Amino acid sequence: MLGVCYYPEHWPEERWAKDARRMRKMGISHVRIGEFAWSRLELERDCFDFAWLDRAMDTLANAGLKIVLGTPTATPPKWLVDAHPDILPYDEHGQVRGFGSRRHSTFSSRTWWRESARIVEKVSQRYGHHPGLVGWQTDNEYGCHDTTMSWGEEDRKAFAEWLRRRYQGIDQLNAAWGNVFWSMELRSFEDVALPCRTVTEPNPAARHDFWRFHSDQIADFDRMQCDILRKNSPGRWITHNFMGFISDFDHFKVGDNLDLASWDSYPIGFVEKFPFSEVERNRWAETSHPDIAAYHHDLYRSVGRGRFWVMEQQPGPVNWAKWNPVPKPGMVRLWTWEALAHGAEVVSYFRWRQADFAQEQHHAGLNLPGSDELSVGGREAAETARELADVGTLPDSRKTPVALVFDYPTHWATSIQPQGADFRYEELSFRWYEAIRRLGLDVDFVRPGGNLRGYKLVLVPCMMQVDEASLRALQDADGLVMLGPRSGSRDRHFRIPSGLPPGPLSALTGTRVTQVASLRPGLQDKVTGALSGAAIRWREYVEAATEMLAHFDNGDPALTRKENVFSLHCWPDETLLADMMHMLVQEAKLETVSLPAHVRLRRRGDLIFAFNYGPDSWSVPEGIRLILGSSEVAAQDLAIWRA
Amino acid sequence: MLGVCYYPEHWPEERWAKDARRMRKMGISHVRIGEFAWSRLELERDCFDFAWLDRAMDTLANAGLKIVLGTPTATPPKWLVDAHPDILPYDEHGQVRGFGSRRHSTFSSRTWWRESARIVEKVSQRYGHHPGLVGWQTDNEYGCHDTTMSWGEEDRKAFAEWLRRRYQGIDQLNAAWGNVFWSMELRSFEDVALPCRTVTEPNPAARHDFWRFHSDQIADFDRMQCDILRKNSPGRWITHNFMGFISDFDHFKVGDNLDLASWDSYPIGFVEKFPFSEVERNRWAETSHPDIAAYHHDLYRSVGRGRFWVMEQQPGPVNWAKWNPVPKPGMVRLWTWEALAHGAEVVSYFRWRQADFAQEQHHAGLNLPGSDELSVGGREAAETARELADVGTLPDSRKTPVALVFDYPTHWATSIQPQGADFRYEELSFRWYEAIRRLGLDVDFVRPGGNLRGYKLVLVPCMMQVDEASLRALQDADGLVMLGPRSGSRDRHFRIPSGLPPGPLSALTGTRVTQVASLRPGLQDKVTGALSGAAIRWREYVEAATEMLAHFDNGDPALTRKENVFSLHCWPDETLLADMMHMLVQEAKLETVSLPAHVRLRRRGDLIFAFNYGPDSWSVPEGIRLILGSSEVAAQDLAIWRA
Amino acid sequence: MLGVCYYPEHWPEERWAKDARRMRKMGISHVRIGEFAWSRLELERDCFDFAWLDRAMDTLANAGLKIVLGTPTATPPKWLVDAHPDILPYDEHGQVRGFGSRRHSTFSSRTWWRESARIVEKVSQRYGHHPGLVGWQTDNEYGCHDTTMSWGEEDRKAFAEWLRRRYQGIDQLNAAWGNVFWSMELRSFEDVALPCRTVTEPNPAARHDFWRFHSDQIADFDRMQCDILRKNSPGRWITHNFMGFISDFDHFKVGDNLDLASWDSYPIGFVEKFPFSEVERNRWAETSHPDIAAYHHDLYRSVGRGRFWVMEQQPGPVNWAKWNPVPKPGMVRLWTWEALAHGAEVVSYFRWRQADFAQEQHHAGLNLPGSDELSVGGREAAETARELADVGTLPDSRKTPVALVFDYPTHWATSIQPQGADFRYEELSFRWYEAIRRLGLDVDFVRPGGNLRGYKLVLVPCMMQVDEASLRALQDADGLVMLGPRSGSRDRHFRIPSGLPPGPLSALTGTRVTQVASLRPGLQDKVTGALSGAAIRWREYVEAATEMLAHFDNGDPALTRKENVFSLHCWPDETLLADMMHMLVQEAKLETVSLPAHVRLRRRGDLIFAFNYGPDSWSVPEGIRLILGSSEVAAQDLAIWRA
Ligand SMILES: [Zn+2]
Ligand SMILES: [Zn+2]
Ligand SMILES: [Zn+2]
Repeated sequence: MLGVCYYPEHWPEERWAKDARRMRKMGISHVRIGEFAWSRLELERDCFDFAWLDRAMDTLANAGLKIVLGTPTATPPKWLVDAHPDILPYDEHGQVRGFGSRRHSTFSSRTWWRESARIVEKVSQRYGHHPGLVGWQTDNEYGCHDTTMSWGEEDRKAFAEWLRRRYQGIDQLNAAWGNVFWSMELRSFEDVALPCRTVTEPNPAARHDFWRFHSDQIADFDRMQCDILRKNSPGRWITHNFMGFISDFDHFKVGDNLDLASWDSYPIGFVEKFPFSEVERNRWAETSHPDIAAYHHDLYRSVGRGRFWVMEQQPGPVNWAKWNPVPKPGMVRLWTWEALAHGAEVVSYFRWRQADFAQEQHHAGLNLPGSDELSVGGREAAETARELADVGTLPDSRKTPVALVFDYPTHWATSIQPQGADFRYEELSFRWYEAIRRLGLDVDFVRPGGNLRGYKLVLVPCMMQVDEASLRALQDADGLVMLGPRSGSRDRHFRIPSGLPPGPLSALTGTRVTQVASLRPGLQDKVTGALSGAAIRWREYVEAATEMLAHFDNGDPALTRKENVFSLHCWPDETLLADMMHMLVQEAKLETVSLPAHVRLRRRGDLIFAFNYGPDSWSVPEGIRLILGSSEVAAQDLAIWRA
Repeated sequence: MLGVCYYPEHWPEERWAKDARRMRKMGISHVRIGEFAWSRLELERDCFDFAWLDRAMDTLANAGLKIVLGTPTATPPKWLVDAHPDILPYDEHGQVRGFGSRRHSTFSSRTWWRESARIVEKVSQRYGHHPGLVGWQTDNEYGCHDTTMSWGEEDRKAFAEWLRRRYQGIDQLNAAWGNVFWSMELRSFEDVALPCRTVTEPNPAARHDFWRFHSDQIADFDRMQCDILRKNSPGRWITHNFMGFISDFDHFKVGDNLDLASWDSYPIGFVEKFPFSEVERNRWAETSHPDIAAYHHDLYRSVGRGRFWVMEQQPGPVNWAKWNPVPKPGMVRLWTWEALAHGAEVVSYFRWRQADFAQEQHHAGLNLPGSDELSVGGREAAETARELADVGTLPDSRKTPVALVFDYPTHWATSIQPQGADFRYEELSFRWYEAIRRLGLDVDFVRPGGNLRGYKLVLVPCMMQVDEASLRALQDADGLVMLGPRSGSRDRHFRIPSGLPPGPLSALTGTRVTQVASLRPGLQDKVTGALSGAAIRWREYVEAATEMLAHFDNGDPALTRKENVFSLHCWPDETLLADMMHMLVQEAKLETVSLPAHVRLRRRGDLIFAFNYGPDSWSVPEGIRLILGSSEVAAQDLAIWRA
Repeated sequence: MLGVCYYPEHWPEERWAKDARRMRKMGISHVRIGEFAWSRLELERDCFDFAWLDRAMDTLANAGLKIVLGTPTATPPKWLVDAHPDILPYDEHGQVRGFGSRRHSTFSSRTWWRESARIVEKVSQRYGHHPGLVGWQTDNEYGCHDTTMSWGEEDRKAFAEWLRRRYQGIDQLNAAWGNVFWSMELRSFEDVALPCRTVTEPNPAARHDFWRFHSDQIADFDRMQCDILRKNSPGRWITHNFMGFISDFDHFKVGDNLDLASWDSYPIGFVEKFPFSEVERNRWAETSHPDIAAYHHDLYRSVGRGRFWVMEQQPGPVNWAKWNPVPKPGMVRLWTWEALAHGAEVVSYFRWRQADFAQEQHHAGLNLPGSDELSVGGREAAETARELADVGTLPDSRKTPVALVFDYPTHWATSIQPQGADFRYEELSFRWYEAIRRLGLDVDFVRPGGNLRGYKLVLVPCMMQVDEASLRALQDADGLVMLGPRSGSRDRHFRIPSGLPPGPLSALTGTRVTQVASLRPGLQDKVTGALSGAAIRWREYVEAATEMLAHFDNGDPALTRKENVFSLHCWPDETLLADMMHMLVQEAKLETVSLPAHVRLRRRGDLIFAFNYGPDSWSVPEGIRLILGSSEVAAQDLAIWRA
């Protein structure tokens, strides 16, 4: 199904009914509204104006649209900020981040919680039973614009309280963090300082706790909203629209509050954001890289425990990347189908009509700026709606052969302590995902501690801290397990595990890591044996009491195996990574298709989808029965057939 | 005529008379003094010491020098800053910019206006009728060192007042800016915040107004000084010395206050400042690019409504660029002649003698540091003076065949909203100027709304907001008009015009822009048809109800024409730009000379000047009568002949 | 002899005795302790706990270890910072640098001096006569993490006082700095502002004085500690552990307080810090560049007036560089021997055991993290200890044939006023050192004004300010003297010398510098004559009343000679620099060996050491008698023979 994001407050009331009619006519069934409208809903403190939204909801519902209502907490109004400046966030340099855009609040402020609860209560009381309402969105894009963390006095106080709960006593905290190191010992929790603006780097244990604290706060803040919504709006589901490549907080924990996950898919904008090479950036500039959207679909399907939407789908060029090209013709349709292939229940475009004012003037909509005329993306969306009607209901997603364990705290740990400037966990995960998808395989993301039974192959690119649940899940895995570098290299207090890394994983791996090297660009260590290629960026010096499948030039283990558990002791270059995946799928006896760089497959029930990001065409396998498309899939086109 | 900048306060009084004699002897007729001397003129508040300046003025005048006196407002003294810290400017991060260099004041401070008026009043009362005085310079290099804008509380208050005058009511402001967008609505003008230090970007409409507000303030501040000077010093002209490549405020508006414009010409320093490629930077490092000085001469001739000086001419290496080479032998002479060829009334060197102390120790003068011995540049200046005497009075500049419309607010708009990181308006203008000058043509700069009649060709590289006067001027143009990308793409409130870009220009162009793409380095769109080359950086998707002369690969219009108005729908690469200029001059039936990259021509009355930036020599046309130079113009040399 | 850095406070008391035994067993004689333990020695103000350190000292002494005790002033504890926030330093942007790491204090704070004196008094009273104690280390790594300077109100006040002492009256200061330049004149010393956060650059004379002021403060602070230690601990020597490539304060002045110098040798970490090319960085990433450690050994031998230690020797990978590779096998041994070859009395490894907690988790130790098992570096140290025992006592270092004059204030001057962005004094000195060492020669560093008699060749890469002592020392030199660019180009008040550069050196050089050019990367000026190569980065325009040995393309002097004094008028490229050294050693009749890029020699008494940084092997001269190693010196190996 298709949806759209709409802002009735942006357009004269006279236009609403026509907008709603045109949405329905082009095949849109869902509409998201309201998430930035606080200043129109509450003009001054306790001076509410719901009349316009009443009329807007009625107009949309009367046209047959199903409404998703956003809580407006991403945009606290000026009167609130002025009355309560303690809600404002601070950047890492201690500078307040002021009013005038959005997300200008810190999750650490008790005032902010109280005020957020108040407006969510009001809005949900008013609309919780509206017949057009099918679901809620909490807030908007948590963490966007670097807002997971804040570095002010409110944050310091809330962090100190969080630490008091975690460690109980200051001696425990001093011991856990190793504060004796540079006479950093604290006398009480009042002594806790923000882990920033120190002369040289602060204690990484403090930084990791600070990050975890902020991540916890988001999950708690979200749960607060969910509790109110559930109370006031029975029978409606709740989601949140996550962003892409933001790993600053643990999305799985927020997902636990929700009925389904959703995310905002800007495949082209993300090409500038992800650390691709310039060659790759140029290659994928106008289509996106074929794994960017897919990676997030699979991630958020997991965050939503099987259920997800695309809440905002890029419908044309955007405004916020360093460069903003026009997508190649066909890409809006392709992205929409691809989301559905990965299991999305609804793909909702952002936004109905391009705004001719304010910050997003250069962000395309389904309609041209200020007008009632479909844009290129709008016409592709309409075409997709017609195709969807033809194809009919899509079958459910099935469990995939491959699981990828994604761990947010490892992103924080490696960001705090990269040890080599280019050790980027998100990049490692993405490259492993890309390599296995190049073999035509579907992937489920699994959170640490999630059930791994039934997967033929479990990929763990890196998991620095391995708690008991995660260990047990790995022990219980009945397929092959591939562990990447740095796994098990920190304990829960961010210390090197006693007995050395991989700490609790040692029994599984049969290895002990005695030294690690980060390798500057240009340095590499050759790997030979069962695999060949090279280590770049990171290499471990390992003692192995188990089978060694590949080794470095000096004979040290590069790849080891103990029963079903493989360990890779480096960051693999492209060749080594591809080789590793080949070996694993053969070992796991998985059926694979070697795909070119620009084509990907995805199954949903008995349907198989092929997506061609171009520029060359691609031939579907012989003898299949096409449901959509032709046997020679053109660039920026797709095909669907039954397995 | 030649002049020089002199600082009597820097040297013992015994040396003044000899300095003055030596100036006259080497052919200097004008001397600028006083613009940094506040702390010597007013030792403490209201404790004035004019005696030394009396003697200095008399000494210079007695030697036969004509004096230009600068108001000293670029350097408020310590006692003033201490008494009135509200005059200090703030940077964009909210940090005060303190005492200890120069330009440490914000134009928003009412105290600063009052104090500036007071010192200008005093100085002009004292010297307004001095027989040696021929003119005044207001302040020094407005905007230099990023001082157009300031971001403190004084600025916020003044901005709020400016907005109140502009919008009358807060509802109008909210509507104009589209503040409903993210609940950014303001309740009153007291709510106005500085458009900075927000979580993500502030409203571009607010930023553009903030920029315009600061630009207006400079023009008003300058007019305040001019009013005082005119009252106290009848019969003397007034100028201001503008800088190069500073487009932060509208120079045309300041120019309206002045009798003539002047500018500070540092051709080599600007090579590091302008976004040239490294190859170009190396090529022009020791001579400057052959269009840098010329571009500014033509700009400031327009700002001065036909009259301009070079107030500071680089006489050798400077101190403030990232690298500071020694100019090639001959360049000081060449730059001097070139300024005159473009219509400069006086070329005044900065400075008489290299300072052996303080910030500019590495800035060459006409004399060696602290000494009475001419430097290389000093010797070239003396040689130029002799040549000037030989050549005699230069005829007046004539109207040029080509006009280039330069629009400061477009620089602000594209800086605020580049949409592609390398969309730089100043660069676009410069490249269009360079391309047409490579064909041997002279160019007049024209401000938006300025009279375009009589020009065979009008170039408008980009004009984002087109007001009624600008539109009328374009309609009235009787030559060919070439409009560049993004023209007409914002209305006066920084909104996308209703009916889509080019808004008010649509009737002239016959086009409608439905999408725009910014293209990262490495991406390009091929253009074929009447022109060939490629679009880089920027491409528009256009519907044309008129003739299409060139198209992109997908058949879309790249160049359109409606009657005398051409529209280019992209940022042209070098090939496309050169091709476009060729087409235009042929169409306009202009006589051209194809010049190599290092040679430029310029006419003044019936004289033709050729300037050779080297390294190869260049042959003048056959059969002409040389007034200066030889028929084979050597590198770093020039020739003059009669048309 | 070998030593180690140990932190009893980091490990359970039960482990101390075993640690001490194992140290002794592997050949370690010295142990440094205590320098970060303030929070364990003084739990709250005046609440001391010396019991644990009593026991630790006894345990170590009883095992036969000689103890070096560090004063703990690098790590003021939380209670002290909270009681006296005026001890905190401020960065150049005015931001306080807070508690949570180390070195969070400014040398300008009187409170900080008082508190430092108090703890040094206490600790030295307690342990000054301990039988195990052989020496003291003051503080730890002065200047590390950019802590030489601080930019707060305490610093402003202390700077004003320092200026009052230096200049006596404000008129003298205004005159010396040339404050008239931009009306920057001050009325009294209360007016003195920090030379930062100005609109454009502050007066370089003020900046240079500010730098000198901070440098002086460190020397004074150190002397304060030394005075207390000498009073309370007779018969023990005092050192300080300097860092590498930190030239922010004058190490010679601190050295004057000390009995011997020491430094912290991290040869691999420094490869990322020094401005090498990427090609060089990759080449030397896993061994270090063969001159990095040697350069510092020679420097600190001079700072210690002949006596120095390596207080911290890198024993494996570290944690603080951008990338941190594992050293090639053999390097820990090689570095140790190399330090000894340059005259080190003790090489002390940092640290005994890798910490499994806090900021330096990735910093190797002689033992694996948290364990009693030697690391690779630990095993190499043990091997080196055995070899040392075999070789026996090493003879004393002799005076070298070559002196290099190193001048800290020149580093400050060129940093403040580079004039070309890549004029880096440290780099120039290092390259001259490298070039002469490639000829197999040993080098002594000499401070400005130090005795230069007896050296065959004196290299002065640059000395901007030449005081009377320095001038006299150069006049008295009886070998050849080679002066580099910019020498003598500023007087003591940071003015261009009257009569132009090289000011006081003119009589020695017979030259006068009239212009200087900085050359951007890509520009160069060819040099021919007695030398060939090219000037890069910097070129001077010189008038020479003396012999010209080489010239630039335009015939100007590039190298001049007057009697025994040579002057080079540019920054030499690699070819020109090598050529220059060849010419000089021939002229000086020095016996040389042309070494490949990866091999270096060093003599100590009658022993000759060869160090091979690899990757190729190197053959020792024929007919020599090896004491250690073989005639074909493998990569990362060394050889010793008797001269
Ligand atoms: Zn969004
Ligand atoms: Zn100037
Ligand atoms: Zn250290």
